[in-house]
Amino acid sequence: MTRNLCGILAPALTAVTDDFRIHEERTLAHFRWLLENGCDGLVVFGTTSEANSFSVIERRRLLERAVSVGINAKKLIVGTGCCSLADSIELTKHAVQVGCAGALTLPPFYYKEVSDDGLFQYFVSLIEGVADERLRLYLYHIPPIAIVSFSLALVEKLIAKYPGIVVGIKDSSGDWAHTKDLIERFGRFAFDVFPGNESYLLAALELGAAGCISGMTNVIAESLQMIFKNWRHPEAKVRQELVKRVRQALLKYPAIPALKAIISKTRDDTVWKNVRPPLMPLAESEFLGLAAELTAAGFEWPKTTPNLPIP
Amino acid sequence: MTRNLCGILAPALTAVTDDFRIHEERTLAHFRWLLENGCDGLVVFGTTSEANSFSVIERRRLLERAVSVGINAKKLIVGTGCCSLADSIELTKHAVQVGCAGALTLPPFYYKEVSDDGLFQYFVSLIEGVADERLRLYLYHIPPIAIVSFSLALVEKLIAKYPGIVVGIKDSSGDWAHTKDLIERFGRFAFDVFPGNESYLLAALELGAAGCISGMTNVIAESLQMIFKNWRHPEAKVRQELVKRVRQALLKYPAIPALKAIISKTRDDTVWKNVRPPLMPLAESEFLGLAAELTAAGFEWPKTTPNLPIP
Repeated sequence: MTRNLCGILAPALTAVTDDFRIHEERTLAHFRWLLENGCDGLVVFGTTSEANSFSVIERRRLLERAVSVGINAKKLIVGTGCCSLADSIELTKHAVQVGCAGALTLPPFYYKEVSDDGLFQYFVSLIEGVADERLRLYLYHIPPIAIVSFSLALVEKLIAKYPGIVVGIKDSSGDWAHTKDLIERFGRFAFDVFPGNESYLLAALELGAAGCISGMTNVIAESLQMIFKNWRHPEAKVRQELVKRVRQALLKYPAIPALKAIISKTRDDTVWKNVRPPLMPLAESEFLGLAAELTAAGFEWPKTTPNLPIP
Repeated sequence: MTRNLCGILAPALTAVTDDFRIHEERTLAHFRWLLENGCDGLVVFGTTSEANSFSVIERRRLLERAVSVGINAKKLIVGTGCCSLADSIELTKHAVQVGCAGALTLPPFYYKEVSDDGLFQYFVSLIEGVADERLRLYLYHIPPIAIVSFSLALVEKLIAKYPGIVVGIKDSSGDWAHTKDLIERFGRFAFDVFPGNESYLLAALELGAAGCISGMTNVIAESLQMIFKNWRHPEAKVRQELVKRVRQALLKYPAIPALKAIISKTRDDTVWKNVRPPLMPLAESEFLGLAAELTAAGFEWPKTTPNLPIP
């Protein structure tokens, strides 16, 4: 059995046009840039990608386009979790058919206070609906946004029923104790835990985390890669502190518009400021504040480079 | 200008098969039954209908089927609010093209703590994207489930920008003071306020509410209709108290499975127990408890009738 995709994975930003459509060329150029600048792989359509602001058709189309321009599907995990079971099945099946490394799936998040039994039934229906043993499913635990979440008991039940299919989790609880718990309980089942918060990446790697999947990776992949590759080296600790400071500076602003504003600056391209409603772009004055705080935190601004060409 | 649809509107339950597909025949039979038993109209795909558990394709198809079997589109308001702007535009445009009375639209509900400016931009993009002056848009305020909600300032701004298009709101805050505030502030703009909680229907009608849109309507439409038609009559008060007690009894159980269990009983049809995951059907023991509490509360069980035929 080959090892599943691990390391530093960026939930890649999705560029949008001035009229809020997906800007495919800019987005794919960013995919390429991330893969050439510190990322082991990408999550296409994570929260940072504004995934749930796009339709099934828009999402399928971008993924197909990515693969058609030569981006290696084996380096892509695809966000496929919707409120609707039918949509989640369609997107997950599509990700498998395209040859992707896996699907990262939210719990259905419209109804709140649903039971573990109901969520279990949902994932059974999803996996049986996809009906493809190539499926590698990653659970997407992000209680601050989805509100609905995975209990440890539910994770355990899913791993037990689908070993080799339910292969990991992205833990965006932001709670180190929870990430630690996941690694300690489930790490022995070849179950990959990816913290969604890179500020405790080093501690997580020491316990056996598979890497990280974090929005910040869009702008600090190389620092995270350095920690990932050299986590036994004292320099990793210094780098981890820097990453923590940068995160604190960034999170004073709405994260997705802030990350896009940074890419806009480093690509010298105003398109990158756009977000799809209900998100709003960072105001120029906010960006100036963010830029000053990032620089003060020791942020190494990526070299200004134009959007990479795509075939 | 003709008056928009008002009165007692049921967010109609959606029947599902044993393998969780929409059971179109059963659902349409229920639509017909509701319209013949106390409802002035229906909301197709509200929260009680498990709307967000179904895909755009499934939703379009059921609506088309409803109209094709002779259900009057002018009696239907369609739930069209998704996380994705593209999906919301598609469903809203479709509802208008089918000739429906309106669209009831959630705010995009994946990202939390979004700004009023972002939500405003979303609705501008939605309305401009539909680009049809026949559109009648109802705002769907349901903070306990959507978490994202409409501030009074946002409602005001939308009415001011789109008079005659943004024509009403369903207020499922469950907060009488909020419903009252909406009626008092916006009633004068030909803006229809529908409480989502029928336990204060009478008080709302006294202030000028347009009726109500509430899940309970699936099983107590005739009582609500009696209150609606005779709200000046002392009997309405008695009926309102009964409705309140029935609601209290029902809400000790998960509302949607409980409503479906009641319909299952009155249609003598087990299919009606089914819900789509992540919801779970009521256990038999729960149903027995619910039935006893409903009867104690004075609930008038609908006559047992088979599912109505549809052409």
